[in-house]
Amino acid sequence: MSVKMPPRTIEWVGDLDGHVRMIDQTLLPGELVMLECQEVEAMWHCIKRLSVRGAPAIGIAGAMGVVLGVREFTGSDRASFLKRLDEVCDYLATCRPTGVNLFWALERMRRLGYSLDAAAVDEIKPALLDEARRIRDEDAAMCRAIGRHGETLIEPDCGVLTHCNAGSLATAEYGTALAPLYVAHEMGRPFRAYANETRPLLQGARLTAWELGQAGIDVTLLCDSMAGALMREGKVDLVITGADRITAGGDVANKIGTYTVAILARAHGIPFYVAAPSTTFDNSIDSGSLIPIEYRDPDEIRSGFGRRTAPADVRCYSPAFDVTGAELIRAIITERGIIEPVTPAEIARVVGQSPACRDTKLGR
Amino acid sequence: MSVKMPPRTIEWVGDLDGHVRMIDQTLLPGELVMLECQEVEAMWHCIKRLSVRGAPAIGIAGAMGVVLGVREFTGSDRASFLKRLDEVCDYLATCRPTGVNLFWALERMRRLGYSLDAAAVDEIKPALLDEARRIRDEDAAMCRAIGRHGETLIEPDCGVLTHCNAGSLATAEYGTALAPLYVAHEMGRPFRAYANETRPLLQGARLTAWELGQAGIDVTLLCDSMAGALMREGKVDLVITGADRITAGGDVANKIGTYTVAILARAHGIPFYVAAPSTTFDNSIDSGSLIPIEYRDPDEIRSGFGRRTAPADVRCYSPAFDVTGAELIRAIITERGIIEPVTPAEIARVVGQSPACRDTKLGR
Repeated sequence: MSVKMPPRTIEWVGDLDGHVRMIDQTLLPGELVMLECQEVEAMWHCIKRLSVRGAPAIGIAGAMGVVLGVREFTGSDRASFLKRLDEVCDYLATCRPTGVNLFWALERMRRLGYSLDAAAVDEIKPALLDEARRIRDEDAAMCRAIGRHGETLIEPDCGVLTHCNAGSLATAEYGTALAPLYVAHEMGRPFRAYANETRPLLQGARLTAWELGQAGIDVTLLCDSMAGALMREGKVDLVITGADRITAGGDVANKIGTYTVAILARAHGIPFYVAAPSTTFDNSIDSGSLIPIEYRDPDEIRSGFGRRTAPADVRCYSPAFDVTGAELIRAIITERGIIEPVTPAEIARVVGQSPACRDTKLGR
Repeated sequence: MSVKMPPRTIEWVGDLDGHVRMIDQTLLPGELVMLECQEVEAMWHCIKRLSVRGAPAIGIAGAMGVVLGVREFTGSDRASFLKRLDEVCDYLATCRPTGVNLFWALERMRRLGYSLDAAAVDEIKPALLDEARRIRDEDAAMCRAIGRHGETLIEPDCGVLTHCNAGSLATAEYGTALAPLYVAHEMGRPFRAYANETRPLLQGARLTAWELGQAGIDVTLLCDSMAGALMREGKVDLVITGADRITAGGDVANKIGTYTVAILARAHGIPFYVAAPSTTFDNSIDSGSLIPIEYRDPDEIRSGFGRRTAPADVRCYSPAFDVTGAELIRAIITERGIIEPVTPAEIARVVGQSPACRDTKLGR
């Protein structure tokens, strides 16, 4: 049995003269529209306006954006080309301040460019395209590996709650939080999926409910505020969310509301899992309290559905992310295996990070 | 210093030939439109479509609806008139299955009608109008009393989170959960109010943020999923919500999401208060698990504001209410005083209910 999947989230079409093709996720679930990016500025705006979103997919978009940004370089001077490469990477890094996968992909592209010492500019360009495609293919392979590790947690007929969209649409394929669901479904195992709608931008309603439905998985949508009642009814056996950034201590920055779900899960004795590729770990930060939180436009709260639903001038609290402390997380599912318990030492063992980090306590 | 208040939520205008005037709350905060009800059917629909909402205001609407329904009775036969009174009360009771205040008000109107043994039909009608107006005035007095008892909990410069709208718009005046805020504000005490937007129908965004802003109170709006992050930042010192129904054991049925806020408050060591008039206590039910939960139209989740934001056919979990167990509630603020701790005995002492109820444990 094979899983019917939505079209590819993002891919490079053709050779170096080609373009990036991606699903415009802002139009889902109403319309399935494919965008074509020919220039780096277009890619910057696609990432900024969330046409492409999800940490791994943003990394792929960034890498492909680098190719778009450097292929126009017409000279043959290597130093000038590398200066252009730096500029493009710095520019793309500005569109999502918390996107560690983005920074990782840009750095990988930059390093490849610099590493090709003896190469001519005309040889570096296709090498960068190969690298961007490799990042995409590696991501697809990572997601499949996450799915294979995580599917063991999904017992027959259980209920799995997820928040936001860390699915196929957030990655090259399969997703992170949803990969275990796709693999369990592929194996013919019956289960119920529950998707928090995820205010303010409703990625759960627009994207997760859509892609799970496309794949034929039994999915139920709920408002974020209903998760507590659903858990108390005994309908949720485990929670799996994605991660935008994980510290060396195991604190997880993810879509706003993730922390609330983790607190609810603990209160109901339900295991809370995070699924993320090892590239999501940011070894430069020990504690989640050091992660800068992006605040979004208050109008996403005041008139989120294209209609004003709050007083025009009311002040809003609008963090894009929150931080879930390691002590609230039963395990982290990576492509390299399952980290359980979530401790610096276990993280270092599975994903090869330094264990030299403080034992921070977040999230009470 | 007097509090500037929004227009009266609901009132009877004129004599027995008059009408009910109410704010159409479905149009707030965009437009302030007053509705006029001349017939009981119109009132039924106003309650059903949430033009008037909030347990106490629905009770007032029900009582005034009874007057609209019986004043058309043209005969002078007392038995036939009382039959009509019964029909009208039974009809109005069908529009909100969990509205204990509604049932209470209807029963009070019915009882008054039956009690006027010697009266002619033409005397009972104005007596019923007087009774409906008395229910309104008593509610206003009750809310002021709740506010006076509750304002002592609001320390200078503290942060108060509320969910849904249990404010002036939910009652005759002042509200229940918001009454302590109005009284503290009237006394010149500075504090910060936080309003959960309260999906799916956004009563917090549309109503609470609007009415607190109208009164000049410092209010910040947030999505329901952001309450956990706000608490972890240390911004919330106490939570006050209203109640739709409170059992003899102190379990509280209230707008969906209340239970989640209570779990979050406990996890952060923040006291969680419920403010409600003593009429909200339903002595016929001991345990919250026995309260029937209304499920609402899934399209309120799938396309809440005139735009589809989820797949058209996705299944939804759409409870209108949840139940918060007594053990999660620090105290219940009533017009007769503060119930603390929330135990059957203390409830009986303050609001005069029977203590003969099971000590049920809900909400973990």
